[in-house]
Amino acid sequence: MKRAMFFLDQKDMPTHWYNIQADLPEPLPPVLHPGTKQPITPDDLAPLFPMELIKQEVSTERWIEIPEELQDVYRTWRPTVLHRAYRLEKALDTPAKIFYKYEGTNQAGSHKPNTATAQCYYNMKEGIKRLTTETGAGQWGSALAMSGAFFDVEIKVYMVRISYDQKPYRRIAMETWGATCIPSPSTETKAGRDMLEKWPDCPGSLGLAISEAVEECVSRDDTHYTLGSVLNHVLLHQTIIGEETRKQMEMADAYPDIIVGNTGGGSNYAGQFLPWIRDKISGEKPDLRIICVEPESCPTLTRGLYAYDFGDAVGMTPLLKMHTLGHGFIPPPVHAGGLRYHGMAPIICHLLELGLVEAVAEHQTGTFEAGVKFARTEGIITGPEPCHNVKVASDEALKCKESGEAKTILIAHSGHGHFDLAAYDKYLSGELVDYAFPEEDIKKALADLPKVPEA
Amino acid sequence: MKRAMFFLDQKDMPTHWYNIQADLPEPLPPVLHPGTKQPITPDDLAPLFPMELIKQEVSTERWIEIPEELQDVYRTWRPTVLHRAYRLEKALDTPAKIFYKYEGTNQAGSHKPNTATAQCYYNMKEGIKRLTTETGAGQWGSALAMSGAFFDVEIKVYMVRISYDQKPYRRIAMETWGATCIPSPSTETKAGRDMLEKWPDCPGSLGLAISEAVEECVSRDDTHYTLGSVLNHVLLHQTIIGEETRKQMEMADAYPDIIVGNTGGGSNYAGQFLPWIRDKISGEKPDLRIICVEPESCPTLTRGLYAYDFGDAVGMTPLLKMHTLGHGFIPPPVHAGGLRYHGMAPIICHLLELGLVEAVAEHQTGTFEAGVKFARTEGIITGPEPCHNVKVASDEALKCKESGEAKTILIAHSGHGHFDLAAYDKYLSGELVDYAFPEEDIKKALADLPKVPEA
Repeated sequence: MKRAMFFLDQKDMPTHWYNIQADLPEPLPPVLHPGTKQPITPDDLAPLFPMELIKQEVSTERWIEIPEELQDVYRTWRPTVLHRAYRLEKALDTPAKIFYKYEGTNQAGSHKPNTATAQCYYNMKEGIKRLTTETGAGQWGSALAMSGAFFDVEIKVYMVRISYDQKPYRRIAMETWGATCIPSPSTETKAGRDMLEKWPDCPGSLGLAISEAVEECVSRDDTHYTLGSVLNHVLLHQTIIGEETRKQMEMADAYPDIIVGNTGGGSNYAGQFLPWIRDKISGEKPDLRIICVEPESCPTLTRGLYAYDFGDAVGMTPLLKMHTLGHGFIPPPVHAGGLRYHGMAPIICHLLELGLVEAVAEHQTGTFEAGVKFARTEGIITGPEPCHNVKVASDEALKCKESGEAKTILIAHSGHGHFDLAAYDKYLSGELVDYAFPEEDIKKALADLPKVPEA
Repeated sequence: MKRAMFFLDQKDMPTHWYNIQADLPEPLPPVLHPGTKQPITPDDLAPLFPMELIKQEVSTERWIEIPEELQDVYRTWRPTVLHRAYRLEKALDTPAKIFYKYEGTNQAGSHKPNTATAQCYYNMKEGIKRLTTETGAGQWGSALAMSGAFFDVEIKVYMVRISYDQKPYRRIAMETWGATCIPSPSTETKAGRDMLEKWPDCPGSLGLAISEAVEECVSRDDTHYTLGSVLNHVLLHQTIIGEETRKQMEMADAYPDIIVGNTGGGSNYAGQFLPWIRDKISGEKPDLRIICVEPESCPTLTRGLYAYDFGDAVGMTPLLKMHTLGHGFIPPPVHAGGLRYHGMAPIICHLLELGLVEAVAEHQTGTFEAGVKFARTEGIITGPEPCHNVKVASDEALKCKESGEAKTILIAHSGHGHFDLAAYDKYLSGELVDYAFPEEDIKKALADLPKVPEA
């Protein structure tokens, strides 16, 4: 019997998140206040986040316990399954062993609920009854909407108008879970009104939606703000993925030679690889390869500058040291909406600088080609974002075919593409285009980086 | 720790389907040839189905082995998870224990692949390289498209034109798996051309799509036809659901007092309850209640006649003894497309006649109300069809609250509603309507039942 799925019993679900900050060879550069350019203090962040999350952001404790009540919520969909991709292996005719940890079976369809529920929980504990956030394609907004229903927290989502119009199903899903979802720019904030006055038909942007969500948050005492990626505490909550996978790979009697994941803000992939990279840092697994995959048209890690920059497009957030294409850069409209971000999680950037992870960029048609092969072998219709790492994992498996090596490849599969079928349609009808590296736009955006004092 | 999900290891996946025909107190009435009105022979069915499936259709063997190769395909998504609905129980404030077996996590999102892969497998074994079928909302067509990719069988789907136009994502999903999907009526068959000549803008119907799929099948030697519900072999393949559930309920140290499922053609629910009903037939569990739920506007079991009728609207198929609203009856456009069928699986009808199962009908607004509560407690956005049984299970749980009984209720949950969010939108905006019992239409359709010789 071929065992193609590895189930972990709920009693074996990890009870702690893993904090990489305990094991970093060098500490992370500090986060700077956008005004003073000095290291930010917990009090600076208190209007936005509950104190527990602020503590997690800077903690150097190795293991942080997942609260019981949150574990019970996790157990409505976790542990997720580790799959062995026998059928893909056969189609590629490779000696490589391909595994994928799939986060798409939960109620919201991606890895996002791992942190959405945690953020709702800590806010609820601090008496916060309302949360604002922004969403682009809607993956994050959906997860937060569901989490709000679970912890009885009211959720207000500013959704980029063009996505709001194009993807009504995402909006309806959020409403089904009880959230309010409005298009951004809206008339509910000054930032939105200012924009609508200048440009009544403005399609919106993630940066502007952040501005609206933050503005509403700071204008109300009962409301906090939430972010779905990039920040340390967000990556921390996702480490349950990798901790589960370690146990499941043990069940499969395997250890990865290569781990592949796509990086937009970086939270899903970090959630998978951080629990493994400690073996590389400790020297136990020096040859473990960790490959970050990003779009050729938004190549933050492969072509960006490692510098302090804002997390949002408008320049309201604290300054993060990260690989950036410039906060003013607007990526071409690739279908992997979750990868259209100018920056990257500081933890991943730091690890790239330390030479502990590597990065590659892919054009979108190749990623959809890999996604279609995956659908016709493993069955799953993959979201455009994880199609990127299915592509690179397949390429690595084909290299194994040439070299005859039976390497073990682990894919961090973040979720399904049920709401992204229009992109598959374009690919199948030959209408999908690739975008050139937007060199001029990036040069312009990078010229506008904020000035910070020399360290 | 509350264990809310029960995983069954792949080595414990059932290796045999359960055939209720071995344990029926009285045998099923024969299927009749539409021309001669005499019991049909295997040879009559050979142009449509492979001989293995024809044998399964009439077999009285209790256990039928699932072929190894098919088991390997099942293991790309099975065993599915049994959930304990702690959060729904709490919201209903009921002493009842509610479980649900959820078939929505597989690649195609419903129970349909359990039989789609089996049908492709047996056809492939008989050298058949092409299959035709019809699909309404697209659930069945999707599952068959994926299965065709798995067994290298070409799939041609005739999709009811109105659904084809309204649900492009379903069509794209089928194409992603490699199938051809065309709107019906089409110009590719005489049945389609005749209709288009009479009515160029014809929105199509499931009956007409069946006619086209069957016409193409019988016109080509290399092509067979497939059906996604109603027939005995289809229900047989679904029994893996209930066989898994029995093992998982044992893990949970529980046995159901009530099993609830929605019935359109009946295959998902029969897949769940047939493996339990043998305990009732044997007298071991005389009080086990098995409740079939159907729409008030298409109330086959609660208001239909138990008589011989055609399976399709045009009158091409063999005659089945079943509860029917008349093959010419066109149900109101409720959103539960999978429940809009004039007939019902003969096995379920036979069991209803024997008093072994019961049936209730529900209006759609109440079912969506239950679906929204389910989404806000358990997280899952439920398809409109299983919303029906979530409603009845919730009602039974509320009765337990009144009576103080801690009954165990098992829900047969057939899949997600990711492509049905437009219906949720209507419900949430108060625009969803209920349809009166279509008494006159049914009376007219029942007047047109085929005449068969007295038994």
